[in-house]
Amino acid sequence: MTDLARATSLLTIDVDAIVANWRRIASLIAPAEAAAVVKANCYGLGVAHIAPALFAAGCRSFFVACLDEGIQLRKILPGGMIYVLSGPVGGAESEFAAHNLIPVLNSLAQITGWSAFAKAGSAAPASALHLDTGMTRLGLDEAELDRLAAKPNVLASVRPILAMSHLACADDDTSPKNNEQLATFRRLSGRLPAMPLSLSASGGIFLGRAFRFDMARPGAALYGLNPIPGRPNPMTQVLRLQGKILQIRDVDSPMTVGYGASHRVARRGRIATVAIGYADGWFRSLSNRGHGVIGGIKVPLVGRVSMDLTTFDVTDVPEALAHPGALIDLIGPNIPVDDVAAMAGTIGYEVLTALGRRHHRRWLSRATEGKPA
Amino acid sequence: MTDLARATSLLTIDVDAIVANWRRIASLIAPAEAAAVVKANCYGLGVAHIAPALFAAGCRSFFVACLDEGIQLRKILPGGMIYVLSGPVGGAESEFAAHNLIPVLNSLAQITGWSAFAKAGSAAPASALHLDTGMTRLGLDEAELDRLAAKPNVLASVRPILAMSHLACADDDTSPKNNEQLATFRRLSGRLPAMPLSLSASGGIFLGRAFRFDMARPGAALYGLNPIPGRPNPMTQVLRLQGKILQIRDVDSPMTVGYGASHRVARRGRIATVAIGYADGWFRSLSNRGHGVIGGIKVPLVGRVSMDLTTFDVTDVPEALAHPGALIDLIGPNIPVDDVAAMAGTIGYEVLTALGRRHHRRWLSRATEGKPA
Repeated sequence: MTDLARATSLLTIDVDAIVANWRRIASLIAPAEAAAVVKANCYGLGVAHIAPALFAAGCRSFFVACLDEGIQLRKILPGGMIYVLSGPVGGAESEFAAHNLIPVLNSLAQITGWSAFAKAGSAAPASALHLDTGMTRLGLDEAELDRLAAKPNVLASVRPILAMSHLACADDDTSPKNNEQLATFRRLSGRLPAMPLSLSASGGIFLGRAFRFDMARPGAALYGLNPIPGRPNPMTQVLRLQGKILQIRDVDSPMTVGYGASHRVARRGRIATVAIGYADGWFRSLSNRGHGVIGGIKVPLVGRVSMDLTTFDVTDVPEALAHPGALIDLIGPNIPVDDVAAMAGTIGYEVLTALGRRHHRRWLSRATEGKPA
Repeated sequence: MTDLARATSLLTIDVDAIVANWRRIASLIAPAEAAAVVKANCYGLGVAHIAPALFAAGCRSFFVACLDEGIQLRKILPGGMIYVLSGPVGGAESEFAAHNLIPVLNSLAQITGWSAFAKAGSAAPASALHLDTGMTRLGLDEAELDRLAAKPNVLASVRPILAMSHLACADDDTSPKNNEQLATFRRLSGRLPAMPLSLSASGGIFLGRAFRFDMARPGAALYGLNPIPGRPNPMTQVLRLQGKILQIRDVDSPMTVGYGASHRVARRGRIATVAIGYADGWFRSLSNRGHGVIGGIKVPLVGRVSMDLTTFDVTDVPEALAHPGALIDLIGPNIPVDDVAAMAGTIGYEVLTALGRRHHRRWLSRATEGKPA
């Protein structure tokens, strides 16, 4: 039995499109460097398939969230620069060195720890410094930076090769917070020795040239999310999620559909029960709100999303298209991730990272010619 | 470096508590059989650790959602009866037989397919029949059942050993739908030859003896979710989720915290940035709503949940308890899964199935003495 025949839901990831999105950003921001944010398993899309393709396209700097992800990525990418955003936690300095991972140092405590480690004679990798300019999440605030700048020996000992910060409102180009953070970043980074600077992720890149500095760190935009909400998406969609119809039910009033009997059937019609549910990351908040597409026809999601199953009203779809075994599009060229997110009351980032383990995944690229992996 | 030291979030699953929950239900419903619903990787908690413990406790019937899960479980449990709720899809009959999986036959098409397969001389396993009594999701409706009952040879050829249905409103003991479905199940199952019957999952068990028939299929209750919402939970909590503090930030008005600057700091205080985010299944809908616990003190979640990080106001917690490297309880004995779900605007089931891959997991049981696996 083929993988496709056995699959109850199918996730197709277009690695070439991700690479094309990276190239588009790299050429837009040149001569600034385009890094790639590949944390959370490339936002759920498969770092083992995507990071090597980005490296082959010329990307050299990669950002992950935590040590585990750094170690995993180092096995995949012997050659890239790997930045770990959380920095060393709980005495992990030697693990960073063992796997040649660049810690993003977020606090004086992390800087002190890394300095002591480097001075102890270990071959410590270089580091990055995180300045907080208004996100209030990770990074040095102004007072801490001043204390650090007063200790040039400590600063030199951690060998910083990048000073970075992160924007809180880059998805809203009308927010005054963006220019405030830009000014703060200029002011704070000016107190450090000259080194490459990075402020922007996907959204910030599109706020203009002033936000790009020496490096930008796109993540969401690579994976097809719109970096400029409210305007046409300049990025290419990279994803297709399809669910398999298990059963078609003939229904009529006064029947109800699903848990809580929340959908009341209004007319004679057909309901398709599809093998995808919230255990697959198909959010329960899509209950009675989302839709799918079969043969170009929009089919409303009716009833509550349950753990493994979701029901769609396929009354308007010819029986030749909507039958057990047929696939229904849930995310794809005509249903962008951002639209699914809006229906679910969240953002595209969360739709991506929630994509579940039961989907049969295939990665498309010229290198692999679409071979399932 | 130990696993615990490296972990940025830690998920502890009390397998003994799950077994105790199963035993409680088994003794409550005896002489009816207590099966176990172990689909979606035991609602995200680890089927490879839990299913063998349930088998050792005497559980003999296990329910999974799809063929993949059945094949995986058969490797874990050579001896159990494994029911696959979606039934054979797309010509998968021979795979069911190869792994000794009992298909739940939901439609006439599946019954016809299984009948043909069994008649072809294969050593087909027995099957279960799914009757739809008002869920309108999977199963035979009344007209289809009549067509089946008119073909006793076909019916006999699929060797049914169970007729089952599923309640839509079992979480609401005031819903008239429960008794309607009970009456429908009695009426429809009466048209079949005598065989064991099963109607209830976790909720239905507590609707009373009449709902229990020959087998009940608890899932949620095993994993500590409350089967009788609105009344005290009779089940034991099985889960503890802890996140590690990466950094403590001193804050004061007029600072803002996190994306969208959605939290405005009102007073001088401290913010803990914790290494958990929506990529870990810690829902973004908890933004500015949830809370954690440190040393018995409730700490409000402030700002938006981001992909890898969440911020809590720890101003009221002594510095000796809230420091980088310390753990904060996010789900646990004092924060039941159902409460987290309510804060997130969903149900405990979805909180469980969303639990992310980055958590370091340990399973506690007398058999393994808490050894990390």
